Amino acid sequence: MGKSERSLVDWLRQRAGANPFRVPIGIGDDMAAVRLGGNVVLVTADMLMDGVDFRTAEHTPAQIGRKALAASLSDCAAMAVRPIAALASVALPDEWSMEQARQLVEGMLPLAERHGCPLAGGDTNSWSHPLVIDVIVLAQPWPGLAPVRRTGARPGDGVYVSGPLGGSLGGRHLTFEPRVLEARQLAARLTENLHAMMDISDGLALDLSRLCGASGVGATLDANTLERTAVHADARAASAADGRAPLDHALYDGEDFELLAACCCEDETIETGACQWQRIGEFTSSGLAMRRADGRLEPLEVRGWEHFREEGPSSPSRGTR
Amino acid sequence: MGKSERSLVDWLRQRAGANPFRVPIGIGDDMAAVRLGGNVVLVTADMLMDGVDFRTAEHTPAQIGRKALAASLSDCAAMAVRPIAALASVALPDEWSMEQARQLVEGMLPLAERHGCPLAGGDTNSWSHPLVIDVIVLAQPWPGLAPVRRTGARPGDGVYVSGPLGGSLGGRHLTFEPRVLEARQLAARLTENLHAMMDISDGLALDLSRLCGASGVGATLDANTLERTAVHADARAASAADGRAPLDHALYDGEDFELLAACCCEDETIETGACQWQRIGEFTSSGLAMRRADGRLEPLEVRGWEHFREEGPSSPSRGTR
Repeated sequence: MGKSERSLVDWLRQRAGANPFRVPIGIGDDMAAVRLGGNVVLVTADMLMDGVDFRTAEHTPAQIGRKALAASLSDCAAMAVRPIAALASVALPDEWSMEQARQLVEGMLPLAERHGCPLAGGDTNSWSHPLVIDVIVLAQPWPGLAPVRRTGARPGDGVYVSGPLGGSLGGRHLTFEPRVLEARQLAARLTENLHAMMDISDGLALDLSRLCGASGVGATLDANTLERTAVHADARAASAADGRAPLDHALYDGEDFELLAACCCEDETIETGACQWQRIGEFTSSGLAMRRADGRLEPLEVRGWEHFREEGPSSPSRGTR
Repeated sequence: MGKSERSLVDWLRQRAGANPFRVPIGIGDDMAAVRLGGNVVLVTADMLMDGVDFRTAEHTPAQIGRKALAASLSDCAAMAVRPIAALASVALPDEWSMEQARQLVEGMLPLAERHGCPLAGGDTNSWSHPLVIDVIVLAQPWPGLAPVRRTGARPGDGVYVSGPLGGSLGGRHLTFEPRVLEARQLAARLTENLHAMMDISDGLALDLSRLCGASGVGATLDANTLERTAVHADARAASAADGRAPLDHALYDGEDFELLAACCCEDETIETGACQWQRIGEFTSSGLAMRRADGRLEPLEVRGWEHFREEGPSSPSRGTR
């Protein structure tokens, strides 16, 4: 088996195969779901590392702490569930001061409070290597709303995104607001017509290919609509700096932390709170394609951030490209 | 505030202060407890790092994976609760092969199965630095048994340990069996007479001082009884090699993953399944002391593994001393 994050996770899913009554949602979705007595608890862990997801040389401890919690809350948004409590495990560099350690936590607290997700525990370690932080969030379904998985997209569903994409590494990846409430609103609005959802952390193209793979469908994006509605101003700024097309940034940059949804819906836009969800294409029976302005269908190239590849060390880092 | 793991955790507990209805057990115990609907879910995260808790140069991926899960299951034992599911977040070194990554997981699976704790998810990452693995375990109370905290020890309670201590780094730290079932049996046997419990990971003396701190009590250990009942053969082997007294190894080595309990009980030993719990002393109103064979009381020196100290980099590592 070739070395890749995807083949490792595929292997894990088959190998670990938990009892589906005890673990209704296992390896491969944004969160796992575990049955406890009469309740289902959802849980996610998102590990961020210096030099990959942030740089301690550039970013403050508070910015890093905030991003770490926000990334895990974004998983709650992806499943349209309610965050309940967070834990943080850290490997602090030996040379960090108490003040730096405290600022890491201080960066999380306003976000934790806004989302009703108190810090309930964790594990404090130190070592002679760079900072690692793993934030775990427990969640439960919102009343009356089932968790939304990656697996339910159907041909004919619209491909929706919760906001414009690209250029996040210019700074937005440190300040984004997890779409927890907007996801809840979308789920309440569409009810059974919201078929699948995930958050976009590794680039629209790669994450769309993952959602399609989990659902056993394909998708065709509309270049015109993408250009008009889903390219972030930050993608245009990045384009001005590096010459790559803004659309290229929107498709491949990653770290957007917007949501990608499969909705049985024809509306061009859906408004929920702070988000205007845009319909940027359609799910199909197979294949990933881009419809150009002149109507031509081209294969959609899939690339984006993936951990644990053959090329390893020479690859660009994620939060720091 | 001086730099130390303890002062950081103390600060965190005060700063994060979660709603005690939502989070009945917060920062500072072996697991956090979170209320979800009608249920309480317990959760622990235990992060292990190369060069601190294991050495990839010496230990196989399977040994490391097993230890990481066992450490988190030991937290379930410490609270006398039932493991339900595990997640594992990893930062794999870029140069690791698929086979190494798979062996890390394979090392967990027999233990996971034996404890009815399937691997339900996690987060797979890679980077150019040493291996980090953070294992999260969700648990629930055993039927009819409340989770046992660190805070309930009272003067007059016996100090009990679930097995002999010391010399674990000779190899036992990779193969220990978490005392999940024995903790349940002790809790069922003693009911309200089991006042407090924790697992011994950083040395009996340091962990006893933590339990005493959490409970607001002191303790006096009996050197004679300790020598006779609670010094592991591995501690004697370590003593033969380094000349430090066996009792010194039992008090300060760490990585034992036996349990330390405060029981309102006079029995010298309590048998539960594979464990003979030994009464090695008594909780008192304050102070930590050792009663020598001749009856003299000496202060008990408190030292052991602590993360995030001033001396940092020059300190010995934990699983690799």
